[in-house]
Amino acid sequence: MADKKLLETFDNPHPGRDYVIRHVAPEFTSVCPKTAQPDFGTLEIEYVADRLCVELKSLKFYLQGFRNVGVFYEDVVNHILDDLVSVLHPRRMTVTGRFTPRGGMHSIIVAEYPGGR
Amino acid sequence: MADKKLLETFDNPHPGRDYVIRHVAPEFTSVCPKTAQPDFGTLEIEYVADRLCVELKSLKFYLQGFRNVGVFYEDVVNHILDDLVSVLHPRRMTVTGRFTPRGGMHSIIVAEYPGGR
Amino acid sequence: MADKKLLETFDNPHPGRDYVIRHVAPEFTSVCPKTAQPDFGTLEIEYVADRLCVELKSLKFYLQGFRNVGVFYEDVVNHILDDLVSVLHPRRMTVTGRFTPRGGMHSIIVAEYPGGR
Amino acid sequence: MADKKLLETFDNPHPGRDYVIRHVAPEFTSVCPKTAQPDFGTLEIEYVADRLCVELKSLKFYLQGFRNVGVFYEDVVNHILDDLVSVLHPRRMTVTGRFTPRGGMHSIIVAEYPGGR
Amino acid sequence: MADKKLLETFDNPHPGRDYVIRHVAPEFTSVCPKTAQPDFGTLEIEYVADRLCVELKSLKFYLQGFRNVGVFYEDVVNHILDDLVSVLHPRRMTVTGRFTPRGGMHSIIVAEYPGGR
Amino acid sequence: MADKKLLETFDNPHPGRDYVIRHVAPEFTSVCPKTAQPDFGTLEIEYVADRLCVELKSLKFYLQGFRNVGVFYEDVVNHILDDLVSVLHPRRMTVTGRFTPRGGMHSIIVAEYPGGR
Amino acid sequence: MADKKLLETFDNPHPGRDYVIRHVAPEFTSVCPKTAQPDFGTLEIEYVADRLCVELKSLKFYLQGFRNVGVFYEDVVNHILDDLVSVLHPRRMTVTGRFTPRGGMHSIIVAEYPGGR
Amino acid sequence: MADKKLLETFDNPHPGRDYVIRHVAPEFTSVCPKTAQPDFGTLEIEYVADRLCVELKSLKFYLQGFRNVGVFYEDVVNHILDDLVSVLHPRRMTVTGRFTPRGGMHSIIVAEYPGGR
Amino acid sequence: MADKKLLETFDNPHPGRDYVIRHVAPEFTSVCPKTAQPDFGTLEIEYVADRLCVELKSLKFYLQGFRNVGVFYEDVVNHILDDLVSVLHPRRMTVTGRFTPRGGMHSIIVAEYPGGR
Amino acid sequence: MADKKLLETFDNPHPGRDYVIRHVAPEFTSVCPKTAQPDFGTLEIEYVADRLCVELKSLKFYLQGFRNVGVFYEDVVNHILDDLVSVLHPRRMTVTGRFTPRGGMHSIIVAEYPGGR
Repeated sequence: MADKKLLETFDNPHPGRDYVIRHVAPEFTSVCPKTAQPDFGTLEIEYVADRLCVELKSLKFYLQGFRNVGVFYEDVVNHILDDLVSVLHPRRMTVTGRFTPRGGMHSIIVAEYPGGR
Repeated sequence: MADKKLLETFDNPHPGRDYVIRHVAPEFTSVCPKTAQPDFGTLEIEYVADRLCVELKSLKFYLQGFRNVGVFYEDVVNHILDDLVSVLHPRRMTVTGRFTPRGGMHSIIVAEYPGGR
Repeated sequence: MADKKLLETFDNPHPGRDYVIRHVAPEFTSVCPKTAQPDFGTLEIEYVADRLCVELKSLKFYLQGFRNVGVFYEDVVNHILDDLVSVLHPRRMTVTGRFTPRGGMHSIIVAEYPGGR
Repeated sequence: MADKKLLETFDNPHPGRDYVIRHVAPEFTSVCPKTAQPDFGTLEIEYVADRLCVELKSLKFYLQGFRNVGVFYEDVVNHILDDLVSVLHPRRMTVTGRFTPRGGMHSIIVAEYPGGR
Repeated sequence: MADKKLLETFDNPHPGRDYVIRHVAPEFTSVCPKTAQPDFGTLEIEYVADRLCVELKSLKFYLQGFRNVGVFYEDVVNHILDDLVSVLHPRRMTVTGRFTPRGGMHSIIVAEYPGGR
Repeated sequence: MADKKLLETFDNPHPGRDYVIRHVAPEFTSVCPKTAQPDFGTLEIEYVADRLCVELKSLKFYLQGFRNVGVFYEDVVNHILDDLVSVLHPRRMTVTGRFTPRGGMHSIIVAEYPGGR
Repeated sequence: MADKKLLETFDNPHPGRDYVIRHVAPEFTSVCPKTAQPDFGTLEIEYVADRLCVELKSLKFYLQGFRNVGVFYEDVVNHILDDLVSVLHPRRMTVTGRFTPRGGMHSIIVAEYPGGR
Repeated sequence: MADKKLLETFDNPHPGRDYVIRHVAPEFTSVCPKTAQPDFGTLEIEYVADRLCVELKSLKFYLQGFRNVGVFYEDVVNHILDDLVSVLHPRRMTVTGRFTPRGGMHSIIVAEYPGGR
Repeated sequence: MADKKLLETFDNPHPGRDYVIRHVAPEFTSVCPKTAQPDFGTLEIEYVADRLCVELKSLKFYLQGFRNVGVFYEDVVNHILDDLVSVLHPRRMTVTGRFTPRGGMHSIIVAEYPGGR
Repeated sequence: MADKKLLETFDNPHPGRDYVIRHVAPEFTSVCPKTAQPDFGTLEIEYVADRLCVELKSLKFYLQGFRNVGVFYEDVVNHILDDLVSVLHPRRMTVTGRFTPRGGMHSIIVAEYPGGR
């Protein structure tokens, strides 16, 4: 998996207000653990920051860390959510992965924090 | 009807969280039971997994099982929902069929679980 | 007006579940009662069936029955809703008419059952 | 301002049901009161009729009455809502104006009845 | 930062009604404080006026004031919201910035008033 | 077939220049001679006038004359071209019919004058 | 008709090269001479300048001069071409008018200079 | 392969003119000869008839004949062209196949008659 | 004007072949020399290299050099073409500027090299 | 660079006819040789086969061979053209690369065979 230590933060410039930050990364790629073929998709990260915001360039490097990692769609979206939550401690966060067609089907995974059962 | 024994599963990698999985299959085809003509449409399966996720390739083979089956729109969407629910026991699931025009009209069917009266 | 006796039904194959059926007819045409000019639009019928579903081909013939009938937009949408409700006794139904521009304006009418005041 | 006496009505053919009527007029034009330059936009009128519906051709003539009138965006949308409400006494009504770019910005105004503070 | 004294107002012509005003400025540009490279985006300002509306031309000049200012996405959207709220005292306001891709990612920031924690 | 005597003309206001006139009629409808079912399509008429232009309202009435006529796609497009050529004597003309799907296929017919073998 | 004396010019800054200038005016409006109803359309002017270019603001004022003029589609496009050619003496010019639907049909007129028979 | 004897013809109603006929079939499906998996695509047939036109319903049945046939993209498009040319003897014909993505790539094949080397 | 010395080059890796290179810059901005207001547009540069290609980052810096320069549309497009031709000596080049609406009109300028009278 | 030995071929099933084959690969990725950052784009390969066609799966593996290779846009498109020409000896071939934005600009490269100076 990618290294979450790559993620850098900066202080939320307006912590007194709940406002929404969304970063959309249409160049996400990882590797299918069954076929070893590359997967492609658009990762969308939406959150309400508490004290910390994620720095954009470091987010890019973190996501690039999945380039040669074998991981299922369902797993990678939840894993990225867990990494970002542990670094940013956001008030809330949603991670969405929209993957390109494989075998004539395309898939979308959406995970939210907080969001247990 | 297609054989639900074709459906394979894998363990939900993040069962502690309610997250959404959607698979979109734009190459669904079956046969009209009245005219014996082929029908075409896009099948969309959205669910929150409990312990099991459906494996994508097996889902493709299962859906291909309708290729030469005569079945009404209203029936096939509910039948697929019933099959997937009985195999996956999801926390919730929605199956949507969007069919191409016949006689100048196109049709959309949406069924949900749980969803009795 | 079109003859609602043209509408044929078949038994709802999954009456134990509230699921949504939508038929979209982009080739609807009637006649303006003021100008005797043809009107054109897209009729959309969405319902939750109780015991009966409308048969698609008979729905097409019923809608074609308005081809040479003079009727206002506001009237025809409600009339079709009344006819379909009286034949199908659905759990709920919405009829939408989206008409093409006349005099530089286009119009949309949406009626629902149940939906009194 | 345009003359609301131009607005003609006809009896709501289905007053026992709350249904939605929307007229969209993409050829609205008035004049900017500051620069005397023409403004352009799309006016959208959506309402639930009580006893009266607005006749389409008379609505067109009424809206044309703003062609050479100098009026602000914020004012004209509310003024049209007030005129239509006073003539139709609808159960509810929304008037939306979407205006074309001026100075690199475009504007949208939405007013509703009832809708005081 | 841009000078909020540039913002001019006019009296809300219909203060007795809560109606929505939205101005969309697709030509917003500022400068990245880290790289000194220009940033580009679409600023959208939606509000319900109380006694005052913002005059469009003055809004354009105010937004142009960021053309050569170095400021983060998260900061500029909140700053514009604060400036407009302090001048207009609106009943509510939302400011949205949709920025063009940098490093293969694009970002969207949405801040609302009132909207503390 | 529709009556070409319905077609009215006016004098070409700029006969000294070869310029292009195109009328697009998306509300064309006729009847299939095999099934007696209505057909729908968009008729596009493009020509360079010589001495005469076709009057728009009369063109509309002429095209409405096919509303209840049974005729094949290939025939109606050539027939309209022949009628318009015989009335207008244009320098050149193209008639295109784009018809809506039937049996999962849609069709386009393009005929030109002059355009023998 | 609009007054061509409103058209101002400036010296072509690069007369040694044949390059293309296109101005697109989607807010053109005039009046139908038969019905006295307003017409709307998009005017597109494309030319290769010789010694003179048309100044944009003056072009806007000139086109606004048709706002209350009754004129046929075929006439107004050729008239604007004639006016612009007489003022600019371009190396070549094309004027295109794309008008909004009337009676269910929309029209496009294209005139070119030089372009006699 | 599908049986070209299914193709029915009717006499070209306007053989004195070279006009274009195009039929677009977005519901084409065959089987990959390597993987035995279904392929999907849009078949487009454009021709200038000589004495014969292809009847639409028979064309549909002919194309359905490939539903369970294993054939490469490059082969099926040329095969359909050969069949149609041998039955219709058109003045010219183009067959285009646009196939849906497989392995992250989609393919388009275009064959013309006459069109040797 | 921007400083053409900012433009860096690298050796064409395939000079033996005429191939096309196109760079599209949707974030171009300059200043209107009449109103001192910012202008915005998309610059598109297409060329066939001879011995030299333009380095992308240096092209970005060069185009940013117009950010605070007052220049007419017609002038800036030709100026950029002249600068790039003098640095790259391409086999051919086209520069296109598509500018955003001003006064309800948008403009497009296209200049080519070689391309005298 | 990727290994062209990965490219497999099959015999052109219709060598007697010049027909067009186009494969579109929207999931191409390589690495920028200056910044070591990944690049993304859509590769389009269009050719007229002589005796050999490229097998689709082998083409996918060949293109995946650039995943971790540092190479300029201008170079990779020409390199792929050279590799495919040397293996397939096509009658003609065009390779197009459309790359995603970097620094606010996106680039397109088009190379053809035969296509020397």
